[in-house]
Amino acid sequence: MCGITGYTGSQEALPVLLKGLESLEYRGYDSAGVTLVDENGLYTQKRKGRLADLEKEMDIPSFHQTTGIGHTRWATHGVPSQLNSHPHTNASNTISIVHNGIIENYEPIKEELIRQGYKFQSETDSEVIVHLIDYYYQGDMLAALKKTVHHLAGSFSICVVSTDHPDEVYVAKVSSPMVIGRGKNGSYCASDIPAILEYTKDVVIMEDGQMARLTPDQIEVFDFEGRPIEAKITHIPYDLSAAQKGGFETYMLKEIYEQPEAIRETLRGRISGNQIILPKLDGLDLSAIDRIYIVGCGTAYHVGIYGSTLLQRWLPISAISTPASEFRYGHPVVDEHTLCIYISQSGETADTLAALKMTNEMGAQSIAIANVLGSSISRLANVTLYTCAGPEVAVASTKAFTTQLVLITLLIIKIAEMMGRRPQEADAVLHDLKRMPEIVDDMLKKSDEVKEYAELLKDQHDAYFIGRQLDYVSVLEGALKLKEISYVHADAYYAGELKHGPIALIEQGTVVIAMATQPEVAAKTISNIEETMARGANVILITNKEQPALKFDRVMRIPEIHPTLTCIPVTILLQLLAYHTATEKGRDVDKPRNLAKSVTVE
Amino acid sequence: MCGITGYTGSQEALPVLLKGLESLEYRGYDSAGVTLVDENGLYTQKRKGRLADLEKEMDIPSFHQTTGIGHTRWATHGVPSQLNSHPHTNASNTISIVHNGIIENYEPIKEELIRQGYKFQSETDSEVIVHLIDYYYQGDMLAALKKTVHHLAGSFSICVVSTDHPDEVYVAKVSSPMVIGRGKNGSYCASDIPAILEYTKDVVIMEDGQMARLTPDQIEVFDFEGRPIEAKITHIPYDLSAAQKGGFETYMLKEIYEQPEAIRETLRGRISGNQIILPKLDGLDLSAIDRIYIVGCGTAYHVGIYGSTLLQRWLPISAISTPASEFRYGHPVVDEHTLCIYISQSGETADTLAALKMTNEMGAQSIAIANVLGSSISRLANVTLYTCAGPEVAVASTKAFTTQLVLITLLIIKIAEMMGRRPQEADAVLHDLKRMPEIVDDMLKKSDEVKEYAELLKDQHDAYFIGRQLDYVSVLEGALKLKEISYVHADAYYAGELKHGPIALIEQGTVVIAMATQPEVAAKTISNIEETMARGANVILITNKEQPALKFDRVMRIPEIHPTLTCIPVTILLQLLAYHTATEKGRDVDKPRNLAKSVTVE
Repeated sequence: MCGITGYTGSQEALPVLLKGLESLEYRGYDSAGVTLVDENGLYTQKRKGRLADLEKEMDIPSFHQTTGIGHTRWATHGVPSQLNSHPHTNASNTISIVHNGIIENYEPIKEELIRQGYKFQSETDSEVIVHLIDYYYQGDMLAALKKTVHHLAGSFSICVVSTDHPDEVYVAKVSSPMVIGRGKNGSYCASDIPAILEYTKDVVIMEDGQMARLTPDQIEVFDFEGRPIEAKITHIPYDLSAAQKGGFETYMLKEIYEQPEAIRETLRGRISGNQIILPKLDGLDLSAIDRIYIVGCGTAYHVGIYGSTLLQRWLPISAISTPASEFRYGHPVVDEHTLCIYISQSGETADTLAALKMTNEMGAQSIAIANVLGSSISRLANVTLYTCAGPEVAVASTKAFTTQLVLITLLIIKIAEMMGRRPQEADAVLHDLKRMPEIVDDMLKKSDEVKEYAELLKDQHDAYFIGRQLDYVSVLEGALKLKEISYVHADAYYAGELKHGPIALIEQGTVVIAMATQPEVAAKTISNIEETMARGANVILITNKEQPALKFDRVMRIPEIHPTLTCIPVTILLQLLAYHTATEKGRDVDKPRNLAKSVTVE
Repeated sequence: MCGITGYTGSQEALPVLLKGLESLEYRGYDSAGVTLVDENGLYTQKRKGRLADLEKEMDIPSFHQTTGIGHTRWATHGVPSQLNSHPHTNASNTISIVHNGIIENYEPIKEELIRQGYKFQSETDSEVIVHLIDYYYQGDMLAALKKTVHHLAGSFSICVVSTDHPDEVYVAKVSSPMVIGRGKNGSYCASDIPAILEYTKDVVIMEDGQMARLTPDQIEVFDFEGRPIEAKITHIPYDLSAAQKGGFETYMLKEIYEQPEAIRETLRGRISGNQIILPKLDGLDLSAIDRIYIVGCGTAYHVGIYGSTLLQRWLPISAISTPASEFRYGHPVVDEHTLCIYISQSGETADTLAALKMTNEMGAQSIAIANVLGSSISRLANVTLYTCAGPEVAVASTKAFTTQLVLITLLIIKIAEMMGRRPQEADAVLHDLKRMPEIVDDMLKKSDEVKEYAELLKDQHDAYFIGRQLDYVSVLEGALKLKEISYVHADAYYAGELKHGPIALIEQGTVVIAMATQPEVAAKTISNIEETMARGANVILITNKEQPALKFDRVMRIPEIHPTLTCIPVTILLQLLAYHTATEKGRDVDKPRNLAKSVTVE
């Protein structure tokens, strides 16, 4: 996920681009760059780090060009660095591009271009675009762009400028977002509405398979065959602050709704048929591994419990998940036969990093799962796999959690495979994993239904989440979400442990949220639920099976998918439940009291 | 722990004995028996099972003897059976005894008696007593008893009848309890006051090293040299119901206060110098064990977490603790290299038994820790070790938990030893374990101090327990006790996980109970505590170190003992905290709502 922007008009371009990028910085802040263009040539400045660093570096008043493009990067291929930063230019420095998305087939294209004599400066997938345009360019940029996009597979939104057309910006879009619009001082394009909302509230939200040419006076839209099509104008009724949240009332809600896309991006290129493509793991030798620890904090610890449960099912070795703050001091048995998996959205969580350093010194192999490329964890782990969730702004984790679940499922099947024991159900799990973006989308459509159940929690001080086996992961995560943002004292129990004490807390009207999606134990969980109902509990049941309607007034259904994966759709419902409860209670959902986004202290 | 009783007087003895035993049945119900005596001989009837079964078996109106002794058994040596039941008689059936306690040196005595031609009927330690008396008896029972007690090591209270003295009962006492008293219809003796309270409120509570002779008209007390001493009469001001609770207002409080004794009994004979004596383990071959599971429910699961933490520190193998209800369905890796340790007070917990059956079938070795001899678990496990806590009547477990901690500590050091890796700190741990009865006694003396802190919780709806590493075991158990009996919504957290979400629940006046007794992490826990104080929490800190008084208003100290063992004294304080909170709130402490003592359903 990156942010891109372009401008051509009567004003100086640099301040317009920088301001636009600033509002897009939520989309990434690993590196930033701009290209300004006039008839004398291109001027490109880019650097690793945040936009503010780029601004400091440039003497803004000295740039008078009125056309340019800009980029703020969330690294997916290649570490954040000067060379990997956008924009990318051709060898003659006459064409410059910025790109948001992933070019899945960049490797064969790159090989072919190298055969044709092209030299590459960066490790990015994006650089192939500028060289392809250069290859096809014969005076008509639209024609060159048309030929280029026909070669590209994956997702992309692209902006192009060139010295031959110093007052034009070309754009093309597939899967990644792109909006364009005309204001009184020129034409604008960007990854997201807030970047151009200051100049116009009438925008064209480009559709997949569209290109456009921006000039100071007009914008023209074309299909990928180069045929002009009528631009569809959308009037944006809301203001800038709302726009930054994509029209959602909070970042958290926006991020909840970004999950189908985040999961799709996390899966992209990682499953081919029934094979898992995680080439980074090839360097590891897992043949002698006899113990696997999974370590994380908070939400990431819950992912660890999920992961160790799968490992225990699929491999005859020891698999343990521990919170990082306990693992560090728990005298774990770690040696060269140990694999440690570390999970951290930010890649900067203090306890997790310290644990990783410790097991490195003890000789273990390590795999990290992180969301922020180039974060500290990636410099310490043998291999780092990235969730492609994009920046998570809300303190309560949503899309990071579900994408971590997706990625660790792939990872663990792959590990089992590498140890010669691909699980029997791998094909079935992968099949349903590919459907997950649509399944999650369906869950999001239940938001109104969930909101009704949140009414039940609105005046509650307590809530009890119960479930068994893999449902316990949803139990933990659902309870954590509810307490984090609504301050309801939510508690998580193994359903089978209830009657060994905690059931004393259940009285008339207590709300119990129960998960029963695991075929082996669902019936037993239903019995435990009935025990709480006998004590007067109001139960909200989440299940994938038909349950006798007479028994349970409040049932939410998830689709019939492989039991390994049910905690993803279940969690979506629980996120919404926590969200609606918190808003009903008037809480500041994005900034819950006492909490910080990335915990970089112990 | 057993119950014994005796009577000689003008009434028929059998109904008096049976009624007395009934009120002592809380002390054991594995078997029951009586001996009635008159000048024609002894009549002994005994059987495995509860007293009611014995009563059914006997045609009560047909027994007119006016002297006799009775026994209800809590098995410690030898399984519950007809032969192992008391009373025990000599070969000529002229002397009969009942015994409560453990004769530690019974083996050499037994060997010597066998050399002298005595034949033994039972596997009990108690049977040596009757044969020793027989050996020394030359017409004067007091003289024979005096010689006998000089040979015995351990704990005992004994009642003796004989055909030569058909209207006399002799008693002797060391460590085990014995009360005697005279009513208008005769003289009475018993293990506990309730058994004789109906006949007299003026009793002699016998002291260690005392013997007594009871006749229908008088009681005479002697020291072990046979010198008469003045009997000290105690007037019992309370009624029968209170007496059954030993003068405590509830069974739970009684059981809390029984812990020094219960721990002493659990340790008895199991440590010799710096060696651990658990001969039952000799039959196990642990050389090829590479994985140990510890399985239990509720409180016993907490003991499992304690045990697996020790195993992880001391052995380079995989050690995992899981609630039984999860373990059964969690696809554990179990084979002949697996050792499973099962913990259940009653030995009848349904999920625990089912898990044990499962791992038996999978070929694992098993060790059970139970409190009830002959319970189902002992028939299934390869080896069963017993806590000697005596019957636990209150639903909330107290003495079972602390004695389980004591026993599993011994067990795990022993296992490590058997695997050739006796822990370096074993000597230090055993040293402090031997001191544990006194340490627990000191903790009980803090009850008034704890009660003041309970004031803080009296009006609270919630409470948060935090700690790290082994303190987390106290955290779990303290929170469980509080919720079980006071219905305060108590929650248990790893201190290091607080800031990853749960700290959102902390607000002005929230009560946080924090444990900081583990040297490696105490300072970090203190930081976490300060974070909660910064949000307005009222903190109760339990620690073994001096803490700056300015910082913490409410500090409870435990003594400086080996960090492995701190959760025993800490738990005593937390039991008292839960207890006082519950009574302040007016709860029925012995029978908390929704809960049953022994959970024999899933």
